[in-house]
This record gives sequence, C-alpha cells and structure tokens, in this order.
Amino acid sequence: MIELNFSNMMEEVIGVRGLSKRILEDFQGKVIDVHGQIRDRLWPELAFIDLPSQDTSEIKKIAQEVREESENFLILGIGGSALGPKALLEALSPFHNFTKSPKVFIYDNVDPRTLKHILSLIDLKKTSVNVISKSGSTAETAASFMILWDGMRELLKRRFSKRFIATTDPEKGNLRTIVGREGLKSLPIPRGVVGRYSVLSPVGLLLAEVIGIDSDELLIGAKDIQKRCSNSELWKNPIYLFGTLLYLMDKKEGRTINVMVAYADGLKPLSEWFCQLWAESLGKQEVGLTPYPSVGVTDQHSQLQLWIEGPQDKVVIFIRTNDYGVDIKIPNVFKDMEGLSYLSGHTLSELMKAEEEATEIALAKAGRPNITITVPKIDAYHMGQLFHFFELSTAFTGFLYEINPFNQPGVEEGKNLTYGMMGKKGFEKKRKEVEEYRKKRSRWRV
Amino acid sequence: MIELNFSNMMEEVIGVRGLSKRILEDFQGKVIDVHGQIRDRLWPELAFIDLPSQDTSEIKKIAQEVREESENFLILGIGGSALGPKALLEALSPFHNFTKSPKVFIYDNVDPRTLKHILSLIDLKKTSVNVISKSGSTAETAASFMILWDGMRELLKRRFSKRFIATTDPEKGNLRTIVGREGLKSLPIPRGVVGRYSVLSPVGLLLAEVIGIDSDELLIGAKDIQKRCSNSELWKNPIYLFGTLLYLMDKKEGRTINVMVAYADGLKPLSEWFCQLWAESLGKQEVGLTPYPSVGVTDQHSQLQLWIEGPQDKVVIFIRTNDYGVDIKIPNVFKDMEGLSYLSGHTLSELMKAEEEATEIALAKAGRPNITITVPKIDAYHMGQLFHFFELSTAFTGFLYEINPFNQPGVEEGKNLTYGMMGKKGFEKKRKEVEEYRKKRSRWRV
Repeated sequence: MIELNFSNMMEEVIGVRGLSKRILEDFQGKVIDVHGQIRDRLWPELAFIDLPSQDTSEIKKIAQEVREESENFLILGIGGSALGPKALLEALSPFHNFTKSPKVFIYDNVDPRTLKHILSLIDLKKTSVNVISKSGSTAETAASFMILWDGMRELLKRRFSKRFIATTDPEKGNLRTIVGREGLKSLPIPRGVVGRYSVLSPVGLLLAEVIGIDSDELLIGAKDIQKRCSNSELWKNPIYLFGTLLYLMDKKEGRTINVMVAYADGLKPLSEWFCQLWAESLGKQEVGLTPYPSVGVTDQHSQLQLWIEGPQDKVVIFIRTNDYGVDIKIPNVFKDMEGLSYLSGHTLSELMKAEEEATEIALAKAGRPNITITVPKIDAYHMGQLFHFFELSTAFTGFLYEINPFNQPGVEEGKNLTYGMMGKKGFEKKRKEVEEYRKKRSRWRV
Repeated sequence: MIELNFSNMMEEVIGVRGLSKRILEDFQGKVIDVHGQIRDRLWPELAFIDLPSQDTSEIKKIAQEVREESENFLILGIGGSALGPKALLEALSPFHNFTKSPKVFIYDNVDPRTLKHILSLIDLKKTSVNVISKSGSTAETAASFMILWDGMRELLKRRFSKRFIATTDPEKGNLRTIVGREGLKSLPIPRGVVGRYSVLSPVGLLLAEVIGIDSDELLIGAKDIQKRCSNSELWKNPIYLFGTLLYLMDKKEGRTINVMVAYADGLKPLSEWFCQLWAESLGKQEVGLTPYPSVGVTDQHSQLQLWIEGPQDKVVIFIRTNDYGVDIKIPNVFKDMEGLSYLSGHTLSELMKAEEEATEIALAKAGRPNITITVPKIDAYHMGQLFHFFELSTAFTGFLYEINPFNQPGVEEGKNLTYGMMGKKGFEKKRKEVEEYRKKRSRWRV
C-alpha cells in the first residue's frame, strides 16, 4: 500500500511556515461535508470511482487480437486520452520499443515532423490504430485519424477498418457514428467519465493489455486504495489529507505551486499526467493550484535551487519507491581520490534514495513544506493505486475550493477561434476577429 | 532571425493588466546600467558570451573519431551537462536512434532501471562515453562514470580509456586528474563558464558534431543574435525587452510563473533546458521566477484551462515556427460529417499554427499577458540563436533583480546530507542529523 508522510507540512517539524494540528482538526467538519458529496455521488462525473469494478474481458479480447495481428500499436489521442497511456507505458515497460512487440507509438499532437517520423518507422500493413476521443470530434485527434484512415484504406483495401479500435462515448459523437457505419472495433468510455479521469477505463487499460500488463492488477490496486480511503476521518484518510494539506497551504500560506518530483525516470509521465488532472480540474474562477512536473534526482540540478531559496510559493511532493526492481553496484575504482571513492561499494538505488531523503531534509530545514508518497514497488498494482489516489484527491480538492473539478470552460474560446481560421461553418465571425487582432499586434515587435 | 512580439504584454492590447509604454520608457535608465555590467564583463561568469568565437577544430576531430569508431555515443552528465545536449538532439535529430548512427543515449540520473536498460541495448565494445562535469566530482555523474569505467576496462582491456572523452574544467578537478593520468581524450569547459550557460561550449557542440550537425552553424546563429542585441536601447533589443517585460510583470503585477510553450514536439527539451537556466539563475533570496515547461498544441488539452482562468500569476511565452520542414495534408474523408470535414484540405502545420495563434488571442482577450518568439526554422543556426538569446536574457534579468545569476548556493545542504549518508569523510555530523530527522518524521504518516 502507498504511504503518505506529511511530517514536513507540520509546524512541529518545519516551524512557523508549517500547519498546526489544530488547524487540521478544525477542518474535519468541512471534510465530512465533502465526503458526503462523494459518497452520495452528487456529481455524475464521479462515475470514475466505479471504474475499478468494470469487466475487462472485451478489452483483453481486443488486446489479444492486436498482439496477434500487429507489430505496431499507434495511439491517436491528446490530453486525457494520451497522458494516462503514456504514464502506464513508461512506468511499466520502459524502453519498450527497443525490446518488445508490438511497438507502441503515442501521437498526441499535430506536429507534422513527429507524424512523418512515425509513419517512416512503421509498416502500416502491420499496424493497429487506437483512436481515443470521448467527444469523437477533438480536432487534433480527428486530423491524425483522417490521415491514418485514408492511408490504411489505400494500402490495405479490404478489411482495413478492422485495424482501427475506437475508444469513445458509448452512444454519441462522430467517432461512434463511424464505428456503427464502418464496423470498427470499439471500446466505451463510460458515461460521466471525463477524459482526465479516464486512465482506468479502456483509455489506459487497452494499452496496458497490449504491452502485456494485466489490467485487473491495475484495478485491484485502485480498489484497495479506495477501500483504504473510504472513511471520512481526516487523520486516517491519505486521500483527504493530501487534498486538505495542499488546500490549506494555499489558503493559509499562499503556496499555489505544487511540484511533483518522482524519483524514477519512468514516473516522469505519471507526473505529467497528474499535472493535467490537477491543473484543469482546479484552475478556474481565478483560483487553482499550479502543478509542476519534475524528476529526481535529475532536477535537483535544475529546479531545487528555486524550490529552496526562491519565493515562498511552493509545496514539493516527493514520490519515492523502496524497490527499483534492479540495481547496479558502484565499483571500487579511483581509490586514491576522496572526491569519488566514497561512492564505491554503494549501489545506484542507495544513492538515489539518499539524495531523495537529503532533499526532503534540506527543504524542511529551510522551512519549505513538502510531502512524501512512498510506493513500495513500481508495478501495475501500485500504479493503479497512484492513479486512483490522485483522481480521488483531485475531485475532493475541487469540492474544497467549491468549484466544478470536471469541466474546462476556459479552453472553448481558443477552439472557436481555431474553427474560424480553419473555415468551419458557423464560425465566420471568429475569423474576422482574428484578422482584427492581427492588425493590433503588428506594432510591438522587434 | 528570431522575432519577439510583445503586443500581448501591453495595456493598449490586453487592457489594465498590461504594461504601459511609459513604464517601459522609464525603465531605460536601469537597462543602460545593466548593459554596462555586461559590456564591461564585470562578472567573470560572463565568459559564456565569448563562446561563439571559439575554435571548434578539436571538437570536430574527436567527433569524427567517435563516428568512425562507435555505434553508440553515451553521455553521462546531469543538469547543465545534459539538458543542452538533450535540447540539441531532439530539436535537430528527432527520433535519432530509430534511423541514425551512432545511436545516442544521455544518462542524466542515477536511476538503476534506466542504466540497466541502456547497458542491455548497447554493445560496450562499440561505444564511446562522454563524461561531462565541470567540477569533475558531481556525485551522480561520478557514479555512472565509475560503473562504465570498470565495465569497459573489463571488456576492452587495452586502450579502453581511449573510448572516454571527458568534458571538464581545463585544469582542475578529479576528472581532469584522471585525464592526465589515464590518457583520456578531453575537451575543456572554459574558465568562468557555468554549467547551465555551457551548451555552446564542448558540452553541447561535441554531441552536435557526433550527430552530424555543423557546430559552427550553432555558433554563427549565436553570434548573429548577439550582434543584433548589442545596443543598450530597450526598444531595439529583444534580449533586454524579454527580461524587462518578465521582470516588470513580476514587480508590477505579481506574475511569478513564466510558462514556456513550444509549438513543436522537438522543442520540449529546449523548454526544459530554459527552465533550468531561468530557475537556478534567478531563484534566490526569496525572489525569482518559476519557469514552466510546456508543449503546444498538446498542453492546450492539459494546462491551458489553468493559464486562462486560474490565478493571475502567469505570463505565457510562445515559441512558434513558420516552417516545420515537412507537412502532411488532411485528406477529404467523412465528407458528410460537419464535425470533421472542415479539416479536409488543410495541413497539419496549418492546424498547428492556427491553434497557436488562437491560443495567443484567447489569452489576450482574457487579459492574460503573453509573448511570442517566432523561429523561422528549427535548424542549427536558429537553435544557436535561441540558446544565446535565453542565456543573455537570463544574465540580464538576474542583474535586474540584483542577484548573482551564476551561483546555486541552495543546493549545498542537500549534497552535504547525501555525503553524510554515503559515508564521505568529514560529513559524519550530517549523518547524525539524518538520524535525528528520521525520528521526528515518524509520527505524521498514514
């Protein structure tokens, strides 16, 4: 089970900039109120809580077909449709494409250079394409889907549509219509489940199965953390503690940046996945916390200076693991050099863990609050725990802020302006707006 | 030449949260003062300014040998010794290892999983190792260097040391001593040049040459931007404008987060390189700006919601390019579906550029300040410009804050605690401190 240590958030340990036990105790009433909203499923988007109980047999069946038919598995998706699969791939099968089959490519942009490279590397005849979009009309995903659709049809002629798997709304949208019309394989993103809360739906689980991870392991992990966190008592509930501590550090201390530093290269995309979840869910109505993706020990040589001596605006969240699965011993060379020889006989994971702990302590000594989440091992079971832990924490924290943690109204205007420029019907006014704007911005440049 | 457009920083365009022309004019005196400090080289660390004039013949010679002898090129380095090479590799040779030789691996951590994978993929007999450390005793780099040293010696026996290239201080440090004693190839990081300002030294240039990039192109780009920016007149100097605008947005508007969103997958590591430079240089004495690494259009589906409706604490810096070098047309499929067909006939780069511009406008309309840097093309010449532009801007901005933009005193305590735990002589007290700390932090966990 993952563990939360919040000693370095408490004034008892880090001094005046910490939180008191009293403040947390006084907060229990609010926690019970929010707990009720979650328990009673007052929001339809809380449907993600039920994902751990889903039936995975259809996912397993399709994954099996992909593994038998294909040398390459290409995901088309963006935002919540790509970050979860990426987090799973890097954590559970690092360096995947160098050694395993099917190779996995995740195209989550419209950068033509990237797609050209992917297309030059894979044989489309031996490729399965998983197009992921809840709405079925995400512009970026639609663009790459249309290119792949045309390309595969040209190349494969008959039965080409069987090489597409659409992961989308169970009933609505363009992609669902195409599934019905063209006979694509498909998997549903259940009603109510919002993109950034969807990693434990077929969005993430199909990729998991394709790379040989038992998706049920992910779900059991999620189920276990949920059970562990089903009570409303703040002191016994790591999910509620996580949200409450970060909320209070904003409200009481003005700390609005939450750095997530994972001490494993393979967890960097997990940190980026968390950043979408936290940023899009909480950032609205001029409030919100800015999550910052980071990797240890690497970023000690990049960001730590700022965390420890910069503005008093951050809380650092450490993700550490007890077990890297493998290890390498540092040999006994350069014995006469004191600046190097102290490392001999230790292992890389010892150095990694020592540096993580040293950074916690250094921050604490400087009165800079931080939290540590310990993951016993980086495997499917514990990844399931982490995903569900952060999703539940995010919803909980959104309710503390009294905002809707499931929408993203702020991105609409950019979409409409893009429609205007791309000539979509009904957005002619937006195109005019762009032209007006171009005039205004021609002056201040150099 | 790269171009800076700062219309969306001005009140004339974005309204009351923008800056007035008057405020900038009033700042000219301060700019002249700082310009003098740079012109007169008042800090020895300004030595990085002279890097564009260096002789690259030794770098080219060693790179040629690597290309002839090796199938793999392994860089060992961390922070400034890795982020520059990474930025170059991804921008100028994306998907490098899938198609080109020698393959490049950059190990910038002590994660044992990552090193195990790298070692399982490469034949050490056909590998050149570039160990990069200014001081010559960076713990992480030392650890991996010792492992590779022992491994290559075991395997190659004679002349194994010739497969190591040390990029380090020209005279001092453990690594320099080893060069002298064991006959390694070596390249100097010139006196005064600090790690995070070193990408245009042999730190970045050797990798560039190894992957077939003419390092002189990088340097010509740097030289040209420097010439373009050598005057002290704020209105005509994009480097000073960049620093001044972000400084004033902090001082006048409390905007302390600078998001750098690059509209190209291959520029993500450039953004991460910038984040080290900006964070470590400016984050001290409780001031500083928090740089945030981001990629467009991808992060419009991850972070944009927070930028546009979250706290008023950010400035967004767009990096856009006019020319992706390649393009892909979106075909005319699904004609009867209005939600998709508007994309037909456009290209991916059109969509990419439209979304970038739409995001600028949407932010501006919401009164959220942003800056755009336009790069004509992603090539060595313009990468040289970008690197030098940001390095000069960072030093300039540090002087505006009246701090030392070249040191990083805040990271020492963590290093010392690590030494204590690893048993380095003279750090016994630190080990005790860790033990004391462990007792204190056993209480608050769940």
